[in-house]
Amino acid sequence: MIVCRVFSSKCFIEGGRILVDRPPFSQLVTSLPSVVPFVPPEEMERRTGISLRLRLGANESPFGMSPQAEEAMKKAVEVSHFYGDALCHDLREALADVHNISPDQLVFGSGIDELLGLIARVFLNPGDAVTTSLGGYPTFEYHVKSVGAQLHHVPYQGDFNDLDGLIRTAEETGSRILYLANPDNPTGTFFSHQELRPFLDRLPSGCLLLLDEAYLEFAPSASWLPIDASDPRIIRTRTFSKAHGMAGARIGYAIAEEKTVQAFNKIRNHFGINRAAQAGALASLKDESFLTFVTDEVAKGRKEYAALADELGLRAIPSATNFVAIDVGSADRARSIMDALWKEGVFIRVPGAPPLNQLIRVGVGTSEERQAFADSLRRVVKNV
Amino acid sequence: MIVCRVFSSKCFIEGGRILVDRPPFSQLVTSLPSVVPFVPPEEMERRTGISLRLRLGANESPFGMSPQAEEAMKKAVEVSHFYGDALCHDLREALADVHNISPDQLVFGSGIDELLGLIARVFLNPGDAVTTSLGGYPTFEYHVKSVGAQLHHVPYQGDFNDLDGLIRTAEETGSRILYLANPDNPTGTFFSHQELRPFLDRLPSGCLLLLDEAYLEFAPSASWLPIDASDPRIIRTRTFSKAHGMAGARIGYAIAEEKTVQAFNKIRNHFGINRAAQAGALASLKDESFLTFVTDEVAKGRKEYAALADELGLRAIPSATNFVAIDVGSADRARSIMDALWKEGVFIRVPGAPPLNQLIRVGVGTSEERQAFADSLRRVVKNV
Repeated sequence: MIVCRVFSSKCFIEGGRILVDRPPFSQLVTSLPSVVPFVPPEEMERRTGISLRLRLGANESPFGMSPQAEEAMKKAVEVSHFYGDALCHDLREALADVHNISPDQLVFGSGIDELLGLIARVFLNPGDAVTTSLGGYPTFEYHVKSVGAQLHHVPYQGDFNDLDGLIRTAEETGSRILYLANPDNPTGTFFSHQELRPFLDRLPSGCLLLLDEAYLEFAPSASWLPIDASDPRIIRTRTFSKAHGMAGARIGYAIAEEKTVQAFNKIRNHFGINRAAQAGALASLKDESFLTFVTDEVAKGRKEYAALADELGLRAIPSATNFVAIDVGSADRARSIMDALWKEGVFIRVPGAPPLNQLIRVGVGTSEERQAFADSLRRVVKNV
Repeated sequence: MIVCRVFSSKCFIEGGRILVDRPPFSQLVTSLPSVVPFVPPEEMERRTGISLRLRLGANESPFGMSPQAEEAMKKAVEVSHFYGDALCHDLREALADVHNISPDQLVFGSGIDELLGLIARVFLNPGDAVTTSLGGYPTFEYHVKSVGAQLHHVPYQGDFNDLDGLIRTAEETGSRILYLANPDNPTGTFFSHQELRPFLDRLPSGCLLLLDEAYLEFAPSASWLPIDASDPRIIRTRTFSKAHGMAGARIGYAIAEEKTVQAFNKIRNHFGINRAAQAGALASLKDESFLTFVTDEVAKGRKEYAALADELGLRAIPSATNFVAIDVGSADRARSIMDALWKEGVFIRVPGAPPLNQLIRVGVGTSEERQAFADSLRRVVKNV
């Protein structure tokens, strides 16, 4: 077989006959770089030949899921030759009840990640502007780029998202979406409803606030921004991946105004949510005592990490999530610590964008895991 | 609060101040109709107040999944507080081995449905032409429309996709994708590799053949088109939803040339495949005897349905899938039979587009289910 190149296409000459050229990719996909937001820890293990003993870098919950959720998922596996309900009806009703909203104000996705992609497609035309923090959630940026929209970045102000700066940039660029993770990833910081109210009031006309609340359960509930799902300016994303300990099950949801939900329904993958995840999420939602156990344990772990940082002369940023970002003083040092921990089989992450790249982000483990992590960090910090 | 309407936007006047208008949807989403490809049977039950006793309308496998797959899924549930591997590494290696292709020639999705959406986005620009059969898979059409591309329909020729007509239309319209389900849904008919070879040779330059092989395991393996994953003109989609009995688990894959897989990787939801589905699929793949049991049982059931149709003076289309399409003579009659069966708690489907709408499509049930269905159909046909 001879391969020739015409334009960017490949054609095959076989037996003296030109068979056909390569079907071209869309202009959009052709224009995109080949980058992925995150290399999974399993792949890093395969590449380095190191087996993890502490997996604290993906903000997963080491406390597992509610025993009732586990039981429900296992039962659902037994009837998983049937498709799951495309409407997630039972879970939808239960969540509407919990949040005191209409079932029509909910849309489900296989995790917030899928919802971020859908939101980009529902709201963005190619070339549209989007505002987010410099160093914010990479997967959101990935999905924005995938529809050909334009990202504008606002540096953090200290450990916090710069609310004023975000509004200003959204205004100046005519952004269609302003993304804010609250509580924040990767810093763990949190804005109360008192701080968010004036921010909301200043949201530019026609700009959607995408409020990513993946970690909300770990923040003090008295400070949560109350839900008003009739406000079309806000979409809030929630997940069962974090406090509910169901990351591998792949289920999250967005709270949005009805017409927005209807717009999602025009493009979403209707049968995409697996049956076991729906059953597990429903059971987990009902097991409030398990959630309390997890958030209590995480609060305890955050205190331990803060004390550990203190002991080592490092600064832990107060966190309202299930991880703690620790400022180690420089990007080089953060990377060295991360690499040294990896060699010990300990997985944590360092954010990519400066100045956040001088943080190490560590998930709150179980009591035993926290102890083991403390031992590792003490050893590593001494040698780096 | 006073609500006023400016353009199609809503604005809120509160305390004499115009707060903000509704963030506009993208032009594409605004232009789309509010239709969904399929209403799930659960929703039809809720709407009609009827509880199903026979679920034979969604081409699910009543034989369930391999006991080994079930066991593997349950075990995976226990560690589903961890995200699944974004690369589906273990399953990828196993499938590459089974198909004698490179692991880099595989891309996974939460069912073929998600992959169809990705394929549309990888290959289509707004306005691009796509060719498919009139009455072909509605979810494919849904995803094509969602990227603003243009569908061209080729009527069936008798019970078969019109291969000549598909090529001609793809050529005339400059189609970027030609979709062919083989075996076909909803007719169940199948083309052997002998029939597909000349079809492939005539594929227009620059046109992708999207070969949807969801039901391939039910067709005689000696007639399958051999895999050549180095050919960039073809993407083949496969699933664990049908013969493997894992519809509710949500996992499927595409076999494609490496550069095409890389294009998928630019836009796909990298952590979208749930952990249990990956484990279950891997276990199912290894349990060949279970797959043989299922396909043998389905072949037996197809014969029973053919005999049943014969007995009732109806014509069953020879099927290479896990369902049988029975021609009942007219669209009205097909709809009446479907409705009457529904009232008996029996779920089947009737395709939407003429002339296929004179078919009833019935999934092959277990031996008991087939018996129960035969009783119902005899009763219903007598009275309709």
